[in-house]
Amino acid sequence: MLALWRNARLATLADAAAWGWIEDGALVVAGQYLHWVGDARHLPRSLPIAEEHDLGGALVTPGLVDCHTHLVYGGTRADEFEARLHGATYADIARQGGGILSTVRATRAASDEDLLAAAIRRARTLLAEGVTTVEIKSGYGLTYADEARCLRIARQLAQRLPLTVCTTYLAAHALPPEFTGRPDDYIAEVCACLPELHAAGLVDAVDAFCETIGFSVEQTRRVFETARQLGLPVKLHAEQLSDQGGALLAAEFGALSCDHLEYVNPAGIRAMAQSGTVAVLLPGAFYFLRETQLPPVSALRAAGVPLAVATDHNPGSSPTLSLLLMLNLACTLFQLTPEEALRGITVHAARALGLADRGVLAAGRRADFVVWPLAHPRELAYWFGGCHPQQVIVGGKEVVRHGVIVG
Amino acid sequence: MLALWRNARLATLADAAAWGWIEDGALVVAGQYLHWVGDARHLPRSLPIAEEHDLGGALVTPGLVDCHTHLVYGGTRADEFEARLHGATYADIARQGGGILSTVRATRAASDEDLLAAAIRRARTLLAEGVTTVEIKSGYGLTYADEARCLRIARQLAQRLPLTVCTTYLAAHALPPEFTGRPDDYIAEVCACLPELHAAGLVDAVDAFCETIGFSVEQTRRVFETARQLGLPVKLHAEQLSDQGGALLAAEFGALSCDHLEYVNPAGIRAMAQSGTVAVLLPGAFYFLRETQLPPVSALRAAGVPLAVATDHNPGSSPTLSLLLMLNLACTLFQLTPEEALRGITVHAARALGLADRGVLAAGRRADFVVWPLAHPRELAYWFGGCHPQQVIVGGKEVVRHGVIVG
Ligand SMILES: [Zn+2]
Ligand SMILES: [Zn+2]
Repeated sequence: MLALWRNARLATLADAAAWGWIEDGALVVAGQYLHWVGDARHLPRSLPIAEEHDLGGALVTPGLVDCHTHLVYGGTRADEFEARLHGATYADIARQGGGILSTVRATRAASDEDLLAAAIRRARTLLAEGVTTVEIKSGYGLTYADEARCLRIARQLAQRLPLTVCTTYLAAHALPPEFTGRPDDYIAEVCACLPELHAAGLVDAVDAFCETIGFSVEQTRRVFETARQLGLPVKLHAEQLSDQGGALLAAEFGALSCDHLEYVNPAGIRAMAQSGTVAVLLPGAFYFLRETQLPPVSALRAAGVPLAVATDHNPGSSPTLSLLLMLNLACTLFQLTPEEALRGITVHAARALGLADRGVLAAGRRADFVVWPLAHPRELAYWFGGCHPQQVIVGGKEVVRHGVIVG
Repeated sequence: MLALWRNARLATLADAAAWGWIEDGALVVAGQYLHWVGDARHLPRSLPIAEEHDLGGALVTPGLVDCHTHLVYGGTRADEFEARLHGATYADIARQGGGILSTVRATRAASDEDLLAAAIRRARTLLAEGVTTVEIKSGYGLTYADEARCLRIARQLAQRLPLTVCTTYLAAHALPPEFTGRPDDYIAEVCACLPELHAAGLVDAVDAFCETIGFSVEQTRRVFETARQLGLPVKLHAEQLSDQGGALLAAEFGALSCDHLEYVNPAGIRAMAQSGTVAVLLPGAFYFLRETQLPPVSALRAAGVPLAVATDHNPGSSPTLSLLLMLNLACTLFQLTPEEALRGITVHAARALGLADRGVLAAGRRADFVVWPLAHPRELAYWFGGCHPQQVIVGGKEVVRHGVIVG
């Protein structure tokens, strides 16, 4: 059963340059995969096409990949946002029990049903915008039971919605109140929990927040060593607020990605280039926190480090549910080109998750693609706010039509 | 025929403080207007309610008002956006025929049908987000015929979609190539065209771009005098890129609004306060152009100048179709509070258009309101990207449900 999607203007991203552009393109889908992708004039006549869709000259891109989110949590932090704008300082907010630990409390207090329902609402918003693969980190539970619960809910999401979910264990996100003054004990606990969570099939990758207000390079190393023993890939929240040397450590462990990177140093960049580690830029957090230190995009680009872009969706520093908006922010604030930005939420984002089966439109890859009412893919980065796909196809099936989830 | 909408958490904005909040609110609609708004416990039993809607505790705000857009135009400027990110300077782009005059060329070249279709697509996006009133400026025609055409298309929009359109004559937007070196002649033409356009019912207000790269204060004064003779209210693109004294001039003419205002001086602020002129902040253009001079929000606030917020939707400096995103930008970049930002796209935006019948939820006002799946109105400014209403009601009728235009 082959399905032909014809009359498409394809940004395949399969070539290194010029968007992998095919002006009069066609896609042939077999089951959940792309069987053939190319110029319509070269479509083999021998293919037994059973079903045809005319895309009317619309733009088609690969399904979008949001490779860094914290999607499962209780509550919001809208009150803190408002309090700051009324003059409260971060210290005031911390004194009133705010900050990341307020999300930990709200997450622990929430029922499974409420956590899942909220995560589904968020994921539906992403899906309606064309996101067909999403990474979700734990890190608001900070106990074995609550981390397991959040990872399980992330897995359930993939059963409830037609998208792929990659789970990341981020118990080394913040020091829970039970371990105040004992970060090494907490890290030992983080490591001790991992084998069982992994055995339960809940963990695709392992992450940590390596920062003065997070965990040290040495503590992160212990987490990474545990991951390595289990054969799990690692990634790292690195050099967001200061240069800790986290990128160097991550590269040593062959990390899939280092994320944030505003303060990464040249040695870290070189090491990332050598280890093939993706730089995940998170312009939403940069913008929302009113940061001024820009990530060294030119140096990363010059070193050949692949650049990805993600929402970093979380209630404290990046309450956004628009990956497309991140394209515009990445271009406007970080000076990525529109093509780099689009590769950053497709092929390079897939690589940041260790997924080789998606992110470009090519035979053998997943039939996840998005149809846009736009003249050119550069417009995906140009419009900010209000740009929506006309169709989203996941595994060969239409799941979104004009903003409405149908699949 | 009265319709009751009950079980609503109302941000009426009818009081000066605390969101005009009613925790267990009800709205009674008679035809296109609100007949009664208040606490459900005080709902008069005598009202002959014919129809009931249970809002299930959802948040309700007034319909949103986008009081500054350039919605009718041909083409995009995505190519310039991309070129700049590949290193082209503004001078390069100007040499290649880019900039505002490229939009003038594309607008003149477009058919009426194409201009209308594009404007409808844009307005539908705004409407789906809760915008029930939109201002549209001309200014990409720059001939009598093309300005008239764009204003006529703006009027047609209001017949094709269930929203209110206010038209603004902005022929003094840029100097058309036909008048190169003769700006005073062009201003004379701008003034000469106005009576006929007004007689045709195409003009609700008159605007100009008072700037070194636009028109001088003296030229703007001539346009304003013509408007005054016709009894038309004025507004002004003022002090966006430099301090021209435009705000002072606008206040002298009792302008409805001064827009942008990054460089407004204290005398201009005082004059605006005295004339009751609204300050329309346009954070989308500030962000997209990577400006660094912030509008003097504290001084405007201290002087009692009402603050509005708008998209400034246009292809060159603010290609956004999300008024909600402007809330987050206004808070994050300009330090408005979430409540100021919401008043800025409702009650103060209505005032910037001279409309006294909307912008708050109160008896006698239009039954334009928006139902949101949010716990608190501060969340409208907190989320950036991905926040959508569950229902939009215009003139008492449901016109949008879960992102789909049904009315
Ligand atoms: Zn993160
Ligand atoms: Zn404007």
